[in-house]
This record gives sequence, C-alpha cells and structure tokens, in this order.
Amino acid sequence: MRYRLTVEYDGRPFAGWQRQENAPSVQGALEEAIFRLSGERVTVHGAGRTDSGVHALGQAAHFDLVKEFAGGKIRDALNHHLKPAPVAVLEAAAAPQDFSARFSATARHYLYRILCRRAPAALDAGRVWHVVRALDADAMHAAAQALTGQHDFTTFRAAECQAKSPVKTLDRLDVSRVGDEVHVNASARSFLHNQVRSIVGSLKLVGEGKWMPRDMKRALDARDRAECGPVAPPEGLYLVRVDY
Amino acid sequence: MRYRLTVEYDGRPFAGWQRQENAPSVQGALEEAIFRLSGERVTVHGAGRTDSGVHALGQAAHFDLVKEFAGGKIRDALNHHLKPAPVAVLEAAAAPQDFSARFSATARHYLYRILCRRAPAALDAGRVWHVVRALDADAMHAAAQALTGQHDFTTFRAAECQAKSPVKTLDRLDVSRVGDEVHVNASARSFLHNQVRSIVGSLKLVGEGKWMPRDMKRALDARDRAECGPVAPPEGLYLVRVDY
Repeated sequence: MRYRLTVEYDGRPFAGWQRQENAPSVQGALEEAIFRLSGERVTVHGAGRTDSGVHALGQAAHFDLVKEFAGGKIRDALNHHLKPAPVAVLEAAAAPQDFSARFSATARHYLYRILCRRAPAALDAGRVWHVVRALDADAMHAAAQALTGQHDFTTFRAAECQAKSPVKTLDRLDVSRVGDEVHVNASARSFLHNQVRSIVGSLKLVGEGKWMPRDMKRALDARDRAECGPVAPPEGLYLVRVDY
Repeated sequence: MRYRLTVEYDGRPFAGWQRQENAPSVQGALEEAIFRLSGERVTVHGAGRTDSGVHALGQAAHFDLVKEFAGGKIRDALNHHLKPAPVAVLEAAAAPQDFSARFSATARHYLYRILCRRAPAALDAGRVWHVVRALDADAMHAAAQALTGQHDFTTFRAAECQAKSPVKTLDRLDVSRVGDEVHVNASARSFLHNQVRSIVGSLKLVGEGKWMPRDMKRALDARDRAECGPVAPPEGLYLVRVDY
C-alpha cells in the first residue's frame, strides 16, 4: 500500500529534508516514526529536498507499507511518535501505486520572508531573513517579472545542483510588502537547487538599489553563476504547498 | 532622562516579564542590557506584567538614566546586548518625566491564538494553543459580546490578582476565524491578572458546544471564580500594543 503525507516542519533543528548518517533530518524523523507505528523500515520520498534551516508548511511525501492503515490512524500515530521533533503530519491518505510525491507534482509553491527593520526578529528568529534596511518591494517585483516563463536558470543554480537541464519554467514570481516584511512567492513545476534563494538574494540587491531592475534580466541572460547575487539564507524559505 | 521602549519577545524561555531571583525574565534581560550600555543599574517598568510563556509584539516600558543617549543608539545597543535572548527593542525614545508605561496607558491590546486541527503545531509550537477539535468562532463571538463594557470580572480574575477592584471596562472582545486558527482580540485600558486567559478558556467551552453562548453571561453575573472555565494556557497569548 502506498501512502501520501502532507507535512509541516520547522527547519531549524534539521540538517535538511534528506536522511544523513550523523545529523537529524526530516526524512529520518518520519521514517523512524513510521517504523515505530508499523515495524517496517521504509524510505519516505519527498516532493522537495529542502536544505538545512528551510521550513515547510505543506511538504508532500509518499512511502509504501505492507500493512494497511486508515489515513487518520497514520496521521495521529506519526504525530505521536514524532514528538518532540517540530514535524507535524497534517494529512495522511492511501495513494495510487503510481503516485510519486516527487515526479507526479504539477506545481511547487515557495514563500520567502524578509523582515525589514532595525531590530532583529525576536518572535520569528530563525524564520525570516532579517535585513536592516528598507527594501523597495515594487522595484523587486518589477525586476522579478523578467524571470517568469521558461529560461535557462544557470545563473540562479547551485554549483552542486544535480538537475540534468538548467531550463525551468517559473510560473509565478511575485514580490509584495506585508507589514514590516517583504514576501517573495515563487511557483513552478520544479526548481533547481538553491534557485529560490539565489533569486531572492539577487532581488534583495534590487530592493536596496544596488541593482537596477534591468540587472536581474542581465544576470539571467548571462547564464553565469558568477552573476548571481549573494544567496539568501535558508531561514526565510518555506515550502508552502505541492500540487498534483 | 526618562526613556520609553517598545519591545517584542518570545515568552517561551522566560519565567515572565517580572524580574525574579533565579529565573530568566524579560525585565531582567532588559535591565542587564541597559547596564551594559550605560553602567547604570535601573528598574524597567512595563505596561503589562506578562506571565511565563506569554509573548509580546509591542510591550511598552520606561526607565530613567543619568546619561543621555539618542533613541536610535539605545535601541541598537540594547539589541546588541540582548543577544541571544529572544527580546528585541523595536523603538526607543526620550519620554516626558511624568510618562509611566504602566499608568499612562490608555489602552492595552491582546491577541489570543487558538490552532484548531488534529495535527500539533510544528512551526508554531509554543506560540498557539493547540485544540484538536473545531471551534464555532461565530458562537464564541456572540457569547463574547456579553462581556464588553464595564463589569465586575471577579469570575475571570486569578485568585492572586492584586488589583484593588474587579471592575474593568472591556472595550473590545472579538472572535474570528483566520485559516486553521481562531483569534480572540481583547482591548481595555487595563486588565485583571489572567483575565484574557480566563475569558478565552471559557469561550473555548462555547466554541466546543459545551457552553451555550448565554452561559458566558451567566458566568460573568455569578461573580464567582468557580464559574470560570479552565484557564487557557499562556502560549497563545500576545501583548500586541499599548496606547498612550
């Protein structure tokens, strides 16, 4: 039986989604909780391999079990066994045998939060990128529009990215001001490694006035990692939702 | 010179606002940071003495110094010395000699967040009251309206409350649904000890259908602490703002 999960987590205590030998991971925490429920050792496949410190409001994942369980039973039992790790299973349900959290996804939605003020974040420490100066969200949004559509995103791709092609289609890249924060919402069927954080780091330069909005397109067109701004830190990034 | 502060904090690591001998407090953290800036031992007076685990988005406070500093200098220096405690000074400014964070306040605004879902809070653990069942926010709001205006709030007052009179004027008590959460917004010139948490604990009974909305007025009219519902836990409560 294949099961599908929707998972929320605080990325701070984890070395990232992916299981590692000597460091806590979200994947490892879920696999251990599934073992405690079922006695079966499984691999949990996530829709996105979030980096260390990156959060999820709605990560998607799947795994297979020999035993059959009702979805609500899996959700409640995993939440019980996951304590005290800051990981919560929001939904669990049986899924078709050919469902893949990674490959069946039609869209992934990310949010990046930048807190703009002199004072550091107290309540949201580790959950926003703290930037001391005000950012021009309108200029950032205008610059961002050069990146929507299908492009070669070599400039905004981590050196260690394993995707076969640097060509991706960005469906949405919206920048808006929300109180003291600037929010960047990015949607695509799939992303390159560090793509959102690379884009946000460059958009911040636009927001500070260090880049003109047209410099965003110049960087994209260069297809050169050296043209990317400093990559934004992980703590502001949230995997919000995955569509199927 | 008298100075006024606006302060944000995460209540989790603190025994509360008030300075204590052997436990970390927000007041103590601020006083220590002021000492490191100025070399002066002062008492910081807060607008509200929040309990252990209660958060603030905009606590107000004042203190006196012999030395003179620009407001921005105080803000930045205190934020530097407060690290790594989750306390941030949002604003600091000189204030009139007769300004009292506690006694000059004309309104205090609190928010109480209840997360209603099966799964526990991962990202907001310690920052919401997690309630497994759905709550009827409309019924809660209707019941809450019996408490606005001037009343004897003996029912909703902690046994250890030191206020001279149990009579207070509640200017606003609104209950609304925000996504998975129910928010209670309460405003008054001043509150009794545990008044918001006592009211929210009783409103939750209305939301669950265990109390009828009219039971809220019955409890108020009884002027009897025994008629109060179980007091809501501190982690959902935020001191949002203090007006002067």
